[in-house]
Amino acid sequence: MMTPELGVCYYPEHWDEAVWKVDAQRMAECGLTWVRIGEFAWSQLEPEPDRMEFDWLDRALDILGSAGLKVILGTPTATPPRWMLDKWPDMLPVGEDGRMRRFGSRRHYCFSHRGYLSECRRIAELLGRRYGQHPYVHAWQIDNEYGCHDTALSYSDSALEGFRIWLQQRYQSISALNRAWGNAFWSMDYDSFDQIELPNLTVTEPNPAHTVDFRRFSSDQVVAFNKVQVDALRPLTDRPLLHNYMGRQLGFDHFRTGRDLDIAGWDSYPIGFLSDRLDASESDKLRFLRQGDPDCQAFHHDLYRAVGDGRWWVMEQQPGPVNWAPWNPAPLPGMVRLWTWEALAHGAEAVCYFRWRQAPFGQEQNHAGLLRPDGAPAEALAEAKKVAEELSELDPLQPIQAPVALIFDYESAWVIDTQPQGADFSYFGLVFDAYRALRRAGLSVDILSPDAALDSYRLVLAPGLAVFGQNLKARLAEHSGTVILGPRTGSRTPNVSIPLPLPPAVPGLDCQVDFVESLPPASRIPLEGGGSFIRWAESISGAASAIIRTESGHPALAGSQSLAYLAGWPDHGGWDRIIHWACESQGLEAHSLPQGLRMRDTAQYQFVFNYSPETTEWNGLRIPPAGVMRHPHRQKADGT
Amino acid sequence: MMTPELGVCYYPEHWDEAVWKVDAQRMAECGLTWVRIGEFAWSQLEPEPDRMEFDWLDRALDILGSAGLKVILGTPTATPPRWMLDKWPDMLPVGEDGRMRRFGSRRHYCFSHRGYLSECRRIAELLGRRYGQHPYVHAWQIDNEYGCHDTALSYSDSALEGFRIWLQQRYQSISALNRAWGNAFWSMDYDSFDQIELPNLTVTEPNPAHTVDFRRFSSDQVVAFNKVQVDALRPLTDRPLLHNYMGRQLGFDHFRTGRDLDIAGWDSYPIGFLSDRLDASESDKLRFLRQGDPDCQAFHHDLYRAVGDGRWWVMEQQPGPVNWAPWNPAPLPGMVRLWTWEALAHGAEAVCYFRWRQAPFGQEQNHAGLLRPDGAPAEALAEAKKVAEELSELDPLQPIQAPVALIFDYESAWVIDTQPQGADFSYFGLVFDAYRALRRAGLSVDILSPDAALDSYRLVLAPGLAVFGQNLKARLAEHSGTVILGPRTGSRTPNVSIPLPLPPAVPGLDCQVDFVESLPPASRIPLEGGGSFIRWAESISGAASAIIRTESGHPALAGSQSLAYLAGWPDHGGWDRIIHWACESQGLEAHSLPQGLRMRDTAQYQFVFNYSPETTEWNGLRIPPAGVMRHPHRQKADGT
Amino acid sequence: MMTPELGVCYYPEHWDEAVWKVDAQRMAECGLTWVRIGEFAWSQLEPEPDRMEFDWLDRALDILGSAGLKVILGTPTATPPRWMLDKWPDMLPVGEDGRMRRFGSRRHYCFSHRGYLSECRRIAELLGRRYGQHPYVHAWQIDNEYGCHDTALSYSDSALEGFRIWLQQRYQSISALNRAWGNAFWSMDYDSFDQIELPNLTVTEPNPAHTVDFRRFSSDQVVAFNKVQVDALRPLTDRPLLHNYMGRQLGFDHFRTGRDLDIAGWDSYPIGFLSDRLDASESDKLRFLRQGDPDCQAFHHDLYRAVGDGRWWVMEQQPGPVNWAPWNPAPLPGMVRLWTWEALAHGAEAVCYFRWRQAPFGQEQNHAGLLRPDGAPAEALAEAKKVAEELSELDPLQPIQAPVALIFDYESAWVIDTQPQGADFSYFGLVFDAYRALRRAGLSVDILSPDAALDSYRLVLAPGLAVFGQNLKARLAEHSGTVILGPRTGSRTPNVSIPLPLPPAVPGLDCQVDFVESLPPASRIPLEGGGSFIRWAESISGAASAIIRTESGHPALAGSQSLAYLAGWPDHGGWDRIIHWACESQGLEAHSLPQGLRMRDTAQYQFVFNYSPETTEWNGLRIPPAGVMRHPHRQKADGT
Repeated sequence: MMTPELGVCYYPEHWDEAVWKVDAQRMAECGLTWVRIGEFAWSQLEPEPDRMEFDWLDRALDILGSAGLKVILGTPTATPPRWMLDKWPDMLPVGEDGRMRRFGSRRHYCFSHRGYLSECRRIAELLGRRYGQHPYVHAWQIDNEYGCHDTALSYSDSALEGFRIWLQQRYQSISALNRAWGNAFWSMDYDSFDQIELPNLTVTEPNPAHTVDFRRFSSDQVVAFNKVQVDALRPLTDRPLLHNYMGRQLGFDHFRTGRDLDIAGWDSYPIGFLSDRLDASESDKLRFLRQGDPDCQAFHHDLYRAVGDGRWWVMEQQPGPVNWAPWNPAPLPGMVRLWTWEALAHGAEAVCYFRWRQAPFGQEQNHAGLLRPDGAPAEALAEAKKVAEELSELDPLQPIQAPVALIFDYESAWVIDTQPQGADFSYFGLVFDAYRALRRAGLSVDILSPDAALDSYRLVLAPGLAVFGQNLKARLAEHSGTVILGPRTGSRTPNVSIPLPLPPAVPGLDCQVDFVESLPPASRIPLEGGGSFIRWAESISGAASAIIRTESGHPALAGSQSLAYLAGWPDHGGWDRIIHWACESQGLEAHSLPQGLRMRDTAQYQFVFNYSPETTEWNGLRIPPAGVMRHPHRQKADGT
Repeated sequence: MMTPELGVCYYPEHWDEAVWKVDAQRMAECGLTWVRIGEFAWSQLEPEPDRMEFDWLDRALDILGSAGLKVILGTPTATPPRWMLDKWPDMLPVGEDGRMRRFGSRRHYCFSHRGYLSECRRIAELLGRRYGQHPYVHAWQIDNEYGCHDTALSYSDSALEGFRIWLQQRYQSISALNRAWGNAFWSMDYDSFDQIELPNLTVTEPNPAHTVDFRRFSSDQVVAFNKVQVDALRPLTDRPLLHNYMGRQLGFDHFRTGRDLDIAGWDSYPIGFLSDRLDASESDKLRFLRQGDPDCQAFHHDLYRAVGDGRWWVMEQQPGPVNWAPWNPAPLPGMVRLWTWEALAHGAEAVCYFRWRQAPFGQEQNHAGLLRPDGAPAEALAEAKKVAEELSELDPLQPIQAPVALIFDYESAWVIDTQPQGADFSYFGLVFDAYRALRRAGLSVDILSPDAALDSYRLVLAPGLAVFGQNLKARLAEHSGTVILGPRTGSRTPNVSIPLPLPPAVPGLDCQVDFVESLPPASRIPLEGGGSFIRWAESISGAASAIIRTESGHPALAGSQSLAYLAGWPDHGGWDRIIHWACESQGLEAHSLPQGLRMRDTAQYQFVFNYSPETTEWNGLRIPPAGVMRHPHRQKADGT
Repeated sequence: MMTPELGVCYYPEHWDEAVWKVDAQRMAECGLTWVRIGEFAWSQLEPEPDRMEFDWLDRALDILGSAGLKVILGTPTATPPRWMLDKWPDMLPVGEDGRMRRFGSRRHYCFSHRGYLSECRRIAELLGRRYGQHPYVHAWQIDNEYGCHDTALSYSDSALEGFRIWLQQRYQSISALNRAWGNAFWSMDYDSFDQIELPNLTVTEPNPAHTVDFRRFSSDQVVAFNKVQVDALRPLTDRPLLHNYMGRQLGFDHFRTGRDLDIAGWDSYPIGFLSDRLDASESDKLRFLRQGDPDCQAFHHDLYRAVGDGRWWVMEQQPGPVNWAPWNPAPLPGMVRLWTWEALAHGAEAVCYFRWRQAPFGQEQNHAGLLRPDGAPAEALAEAKKVAEELSELDPLQPIQAPVALIFDYESAWVIDTQPQGADFSYFGLVFDAYRALRRAGLSVDILSPDAALDSYRLVLAPGLAVFGQNLKARLAEHSGTVILGPRTGSRTPNVSIPLPLPPAVPGLDCQVDFVESLPPASRIPLEGGGSFIRWAESISGAASAIIRTESGHPALAGSQSLAYLAGWPDHGGWDRIIHWACESQGLEAHSLPQGLRMRDTAQYQFVFNYSPETTEWNGLRIPPAGVMRHPHRQKADGT
């Protein structure tokens, strides 16, 4: 158990060296202890091939470390310098449209390119050799935001070559592949692995097995890319290695990169995400315009706690308006503090703000920092400082296992994304809606990978877990708490076909999905007693008794308090009923929190956060907008 | 006059051979008599170039035929095997974006490719030779769904080469082409046919004459492609040849392929079409979510009756949720029966369900069949069986000529699609709105090609018939019933220019279009007495007297009970007035059917169909949702 | 001071020579005095390389001139003939998608192509030599609608080559470029100019400095292209040279092409522009469907008066429905007259209608003319004739300097377009909203380039002037009237970075922008006392006193009656308050005109125009729809 700390992202190469020292002192004075540097500095570190310039970094480390700051050193592999393209002209990623992308921004590399991989190994080794034991380097970040800007998938020649080898290894023979993919359909059989192309630019949709295998391959490429640098650094340093993942990024399996790293960092931009990547009603988008979705941060905190096997950071915390969302409003005063505390309450070891000083040049010049471009304090600086002070007065926060587990699976996301069957069906959206309902009930949640231990969770949910392994199936069937499967759970085999017997096919649950249907936005299927199914409904049969029915009498939730199947995508009201039923089954206390109010438990405390723009009363408390309350369990709040 | 029959689409190559016999027996038990096979099985029939494997097909035919089923054998040319690309790497279609498409789905060929044409001739001959006189092969299907997935147009080198030759044959000299196209405009003159390119990727829109000629050329390529297989099969078989057309597919002239075939099949997906290709109000889309548009099926039945010169089938009938529309709800119980009866009432010789058993693999694994993937009956099986039973108790249905003719012309569709002049102006949409109004009035309709005989139709409509041949013009002017032209009828010459004198220029109708205007969705021009023009209005002048006027006094419908011109696109209310006026002119009975109720006459019976989700009362009848009533003309109903 | 005249665009090459004479006589009879010809006739003038055919043009000039018409002769460089591509296959423009465009429409050339430039010089010289002193050629038009169809930007190899040279000239050394662009960000440093590519097809957004420099370069290419023809013609003719600019075309700096020309023409399509390129509420789009936006024409008149340094024409005036907007309704009767008078009241020397006779062939066959395709008068002919008659009875209109100046800057448009920071933030839209508010207040406005003299304007607005030169800044700070800056004024340096000190940094205005935010459409920030900020708000600090505040107390407009800063994008109500405050500060009369009513002052007259579809009462006047009233200042109207 560690006391969590605060930090910041810093780019010494953007500023006159004269200001570094002042910056370092101001960071320390603000109560920040971590500083991340170096992640995009390849052209400063190696201005020409093999001509290294480490001096400036030496000096920066010295100045920062001398001020008492601990440095996270980034490998600069997300931004290869321009000269790299002279060595490897074909290292650039290729879009689904078949066009090679160009130099001039970032992430301009293909994960499959062997030549670029060797360059990454080289720069990681050079950095590791020089700084692996450096007294001020306390952690390493590898690359930056894998998969961001849709870069997990590249349709390059390198990818094609790699994909063919990957398929050969997976299937051994082309006839095995033809069988596995069901290539008898539409005469899609191949005679050799060399005939297989990437699944873009087909006349109509390609075989979903083809697409999903390409998603798996592409994920493996990210894992391997990361591993190359891990392997280069491990012998040279004993400091923890981490990566900063991006929110709602499903391009690769984070659990698998996570296994090779020590800490999972993630980059939390609550307002940007609500604007550009979350499903929410127009009224919620307006209500939470300056606060972000009340559950998005918590969801990712819980996810990355799992990815990091307990050790996780917020590597980049939004401190003000950003530059990249369709619209970029400023946070409500107090929200930077609230977001920080939400992370801490979820067990973050560190929360680092991105970035120290707003850059007046380049792509992100409209991205706020803790300082304005002229060095004056921006709004967030005081809030960061306040959290630092509050932290210093607090005992270390002790995480606890949550009563509820929610299973999250990247492979299922790829399967559903490949054949959503309804234009607005998103695996992430379904799981996130379940999570939101759990939060509205005031529950703390652990997110689990499909092969994580189920421990003693009172409630386990596995919505949309399309690929449902036999092992997990057996464990869930025997689990002692309440398990809720569906919709779509177990709907595909690993070869992306419909399993026989029909899903969910779980021991102890006499129920099967007869057929499924997707529904357009204006349509809904009302449930008896309140709430509706939206987007998706399944017709199920079997002896499992209906716990909730649709108004026309079909089972909507069927089974028992041990194991139940949910036959559709519930709306807000539907989810609330299901969660309350499950909590009642388990004797768990389920709240009905006011809109925008959220809770999170640590061992000692219950935290209450107010995401709404008004003072909110609840349970005798009056919580101001952006308010954070913390009180010992079962007791009254002791602060705002 | 034949008794209509039911059938099913089957893919023996998808299933273990052991199950074929059981499948065949179950089909027969259900009352199905036709089974279509083979259409996508090229890689099973010819796994390597020139190595044929007919044995499995022999056995499948034997098993199906022995069970009493009649086989429609498909040529597999919609899915060339992967090895074909090694022989003809440039046979793939090229999109409007100039990108060649890839192997990995279906319809991956360019209609203009000479090499692929020779392959199609070869496989058709091989099949014809082996199965042309086979006792169980009772019909042939050529290819599958020409034009589906936007494949009628290909911007390939083969197409370019063919297009230049086609132009040379049409215009003989480049100066004739320059004159015909009006290339004096914008200095677009060509010096030789070799300079002409395909009309994609221009800076702004290309010459409409250029585009329309490319549409004509592309249509001719489809006709020629089909003809190659017809010519290969004719000497080898005396069984009827057919093609299964796709709904709302305007990429080529179906009347012209139809002339080379014996039967027109079409693939009817009522729910999919309402979701992905029909204009309908949001409230109608919701109301008919599980039933499909009440007029879409009937329209295509009437269209393909014309394409097949009286002989037509539903080759693929939707039996449950499909996989390919944006949203895919399940049919209301009873709709599969209703759809089947609507087809039969329109004179279908056969209705085949697609498909027998839902495939658990490949692109269409979410497409329902009569059986579930595990072989258990799906919802539709019982409905198909019920229709089979009902059919067996019924005298053969005797078609009659409808009192109303609606002219449909693919060339006019291309002309209007090339220069719609209003973003939401669609030729199909205009004709379909006219058809809907005729159906709301309870009328049976025949759809005619522009050169079909006009017979003794009491009412003839030719809305949007942009290219209006002199021959038809003369015949319509002399026709004894009520003829309604317009809007846009006769608005373009065959060279896609404005004719002089100005349209419609029909003898006996003293009226001309002075100018036209298109209207955005929020705008309308009210008609005196009810209804409005939407989308389109024309200012007409001349001595023809106004039958209906706009509220500002301009003629909206002008002329006489013999020949009238409609000067805009009426809304629902406007169309109803026009149809009722025309019926009154002709002493035809025009109903005002309740929403969702539709009728169709055969010689003996009047059928009434209820597409609405509620029981509907009309004329003393109470018709349940999805209800089908059939009663002798002028009598009370005898069943539901 | 000249008496303004009317004219028309004519294409003799489209018509049988026999009709030319009649056409010329009818033009003259209508009161037209100008006729533009030749602009797209290259293939008629030079059917083969170097084989000139001037005879037809000689005859056309003779016929037109003999009828008393003055000819504007166009250079045909917007439509190079097909044979040109055999000489210069790479002269075609390349889209942002990297695809080369094709022959078959117009504007199919890249401004950067040296070979095509030499052809343009050649044809201009040939024309200049033959017609430079021709008695009937009274003016020259160079090319047609630069930048239309998004052609100002081309991503061709010629452009790439030119861009590298342009950058080298601008920055001299690559390290200077790296510094200026801030390439330390994301390791974007270049080692040489040869490494720089065009800013398309990057993984995520390119450096804004890179993009803006490409916009500047592209604008310079247009200026240079135009200059080549100017330089070719000047020695050969003493007649004025002009170009016909397109509405809302921001692809290049019109002020800079304007300096090389004598007259600025522009092409005014009020109904087309409202449909396809203006921001307006749905209700306004409906209300002004047949009239066009009440301010769009006036805005461009004022803009092109500045571009032409006082000498400007409407070169193409919409006379009826056009063919190119999403929807193309017909004008309300009277609007062609109203639009013409609005132009004359703004000081147009001539208004020419496009086109004489509607072409029955080619891309624009649905574009109305003064005559129908059959030569009969179209609706607009009588309105044109009426204006000609009215003009003949009127003293020459004497322009006056407006009391209000609005600064317009193409470079700022590029900067904001490159990083709008809010999805719906448009520089043009912001300036136009300011203009609309000035018009609602009944004010006449002069639009100024940033380096124009500020003279004695009582009110100067510079909204969104992102790049705010030191010279202008100093002049505005000292200006004696009321100056309103902001939002975003001065927010970027010429190198497209955030300036230090923070903006607006104007002497005499103690105020700075602390941070900015963009707002989605549903969001607004109410102002105390009425009106709101929409889309954009800035948090400002400093001693400048708040003139208007937001409801939460932040300054919305701050400063003094001399110099104020506007910290957001006001809505209709907000702008009205600001304009009325400014007018009050200056003792200027500010009206609150009824919706659709607009005014414009000349030295002698006040014109009142009614753009609304109903008779409108105001100030004792009753003005019919499309009505134009003209009365001596401060007196009652004398006509409708």
